[in-house]
Amino acid sequence: MRETWVVGAATTRYGKLPDSGREAATRVALEAIDGSGIDPKRIGYTFVSNAFGVAERQAHVGPLINTALGIPDVPSATIESACSSSSAGLHEAFVHVAGGFADAVLVVGVEKLSHLDTLTATSYFAMGADYPFETRNGATFPGLYATLAYVHRQKYGTTSEELGAIAVKNHANAARNPHAHFQKEITLETYLRSPVIASPLRLYDCCPFSDGAAAVVVAAREAAGTPSSEPLVIRASARSGSVADMQDRLDLTGLPATRTAAVAAFRQAGIGPDAVDFLEVHDCFTIAEVLALEDLGFYPKGAAARAGPEGETARDGRLPVNPSGGLKAKGHPVSATGAGQVVEIFEQFNHRAGARQVPKTEWALAHNVGATGGSCSVHLFSHR
Amino acid sequence: MRETWVVGAATTRYGKLPDSGREAATRVALEAIDGSGIDPKRIGYTFVSNAFGVAERQAHVGPLINTALGIPDVPSATIESACSSSSAGLHEAFVHVAGGFADAVLVVGVEKLSHLDTLTATSYFAMGADYPFETRNGATFPGLYATLAYVHRQKYGTTSEELGAIAVKNHANAARNPHAHFQKEITLETYLRSPVIASPLRLYDCCPFSDGAAAVVVAAREAAGTPSSEPLVIRASARSGSVADMQDRLDLTGLPATRTAAVAAFRQAGIGPDAVDFLEVHDCFTIAEVLALEDLGFYPKGAAARAGPEGETARDGRLPVNPSGGLKAKGHPVSATGAGQVVEIFEQFNHRAGARQVPKTEWALAHNVGATGGSCSVHLFSHR
Repeated sequence: MRETWVVGAATTRYGKLPDSGREAATRVALEAIDGSGIDPKRIGYTFVSNAFGVAERQAHVGPLINTALGIPDVPSATIESACSSSSAGLHEAFVHVAGGFADAVLVVGVEKLSHLDTLTATSYFAMGADYPFETRNGATFPGLYATLAYVHRQKYGTTSEELGAIAVKNHANAARNPHAHFQKEITLETYLRSPVIASPLRLYDCCPFSDGAAAVVVAAREAAGTPSSEPLVIRASARSGSVADMQDRLDLTGLPATRTAAVAAFRQAGIGPDAVDFLEVHDCFTIAEVLALEDLGFYPKGAAARAGPEGETARDGRLPVNPSGGLKAKGHPVSATGAGQVVEIFEQFNHRAGARQVPKTEWALAHNVGATGGSCSVHLFSHR
Repeated sequence: MRETWVVGAATTRYGKLPDSGREAATRVALEAIDGSGIDPKRIGYTFVSNAFGVAERQAHVGPLINTALGIPDVPSATIESACSSSSAGLHEAFVHVAGGFADAVLVVGVEKLSHLDTLTATSYFAMGADYPFETRNGATFPGLYATLAYVHRQKYGTTSEELGAIAVKNHANAARNPHAHFQKEITLETYLRSPVIASPLRLYDCCPFSDGAAAVVVAAREAAGTPSSEPLVIRASARSGSVADMQDRLDLTGLPATRTAAVAAFRQAGIGPDAVDFLEVHDCFTIAEVLALEDLGFYPKGAAARAGPEGETARDGRLPVNPSGGLKAKGHPVSATGAGQVVEIFEQFNHRAGARQVPKTEWALAHNVGATGGSCSVHLFSHR
């Protein structure tokens, strides 16, 4: 297996894209390629993620992007795995490059739904759940994650103040991130005064609907030449599934796919959680950050919610979590989210994260979940 | 690179699925796994193709299928490349297995749109084209392929009778295929009396809208044990793109992506067209079969249309083309089509094709196009 690097990365600001998804995807792809120093002609495959491109009446978007980039002959495919779509694309890129099938691969994630009314947009997002068994019966993602939060509260006493501290931290980080959807801090009082969306989750427990696009360029070490930025060495690229529907699971205190993917990733990399300096985790709701930290092995079950209030996971804490602001406050443009997490780690590794720079960047972890954990991707990165 | 086999294959009949896409996909996946002799626990990844699952309000279908199959932990992703979606999935399966990342991979393609009215269904299919530059301006696939047929007629004198002979042949094959949507023969008179859809293409030049599902199981030789069926050895798995929009191409006498993918595939396999005994090619319209045979290198430009009337491409001819009936008459359930071509080759290699059995099965080629050739996959198969 060849050593495989992320050599370029770029993102739009999350929020509302002024142009079409394909145009935004092309812009960030061009910026990522330009910054990578890779000759575009060395790109052997393009993986696009755009789960809800249908909302722009556009499928088969890879050839459109490749044509606009001047590499029309490069094969492409669109990869969908709900909210973990572009981390699934990154996994394919890793397999192609590490396996010697391509010297370099472009990964682009994009989503644009802001031109739709809220009800229509919500009905798209809900397609990540099981339609006949969940969605049609009224289950939405806020409701499903509220169920997880409720179970966690019942079993471990997780409080609103603890969940609120996560929202406060992630907003504080996003306020320092020019790519973020919500560039404003909030207080715990604001959180506690916000309306209940699905008990026990309040408005500020929930990530927003965001547009956005993010791209990364993956290349074999021997194809990377002398990169202009410090690359991320992909030390592990692991994915897992789990029983799709929550009502069929025996245990709702965590997401089994996160546990399986984390075990595989740490085994691949030959390290444990102790070696990781900072994380980008999938906090579509504040409770999801708690579950991630526990399921990934950073805290025992029931202990992670305490980490927020104690400041351990702040950007200057012992273990910075979501220095970007996370899905919660940086935003969650479904298919761009996984690639966007890698953009954050790339900027942190290159000390380009400005006011949200974390102190230590030897090892980082990216964790991206599809729906309520039917899919999960875990990637580990280190320096050369 | 590990030698990689197709060890199991199954399909629904094409036409109208009585159940949901996910149920049909699960049924054929189960049948393909059962027939393969592979322990489902050895499956390391599932690639589903279901370009228009949104029409059933369902994305993220991989975990639903894996859960129903009893392998919920297996990671999955949905692969879309317009009409070449499941051949793109097969390519990913090949890369994972040949590269040593998985011992066995499940590939499933499914499409169900028959519950929609024709206009809505048409608007889904049209998403494979470029929305702002083609679809919004009234270009549909019949119109775009009619343009290709017109150019071919102008340059090479290709006649309606020659295109009609392809329709007659493919209907004759489909009439002998229990999986086919149209199990009836037609005459040249029927063809010539059928209405013009987009000049010069008539009704019987066009493939139907079909539902359907098809699955194949791919495994490393060393993981396959003693397979219960004769496996297909994947000798080449090549994909290419091309300039997405026809109005931006310099030459409309063929599909450049087919040419590029064919050159790559024949190089991988170390053979030329002369070695191939039969083909499944992408005949979404009769003219597309002509273009495929020329672009793949089986006939010089302008000569393939003559092959039909002379009977060369009949199932008992020198070079049987589309013994299944092809997209034209077997049907074209978008995301199932590529996997379905491989099912046909699997049945032919195992002499289970009944009345449509071709005489020689040493080498076969599968050719699957996305839209008007923005994407193309070419696979070559031989015996052990």
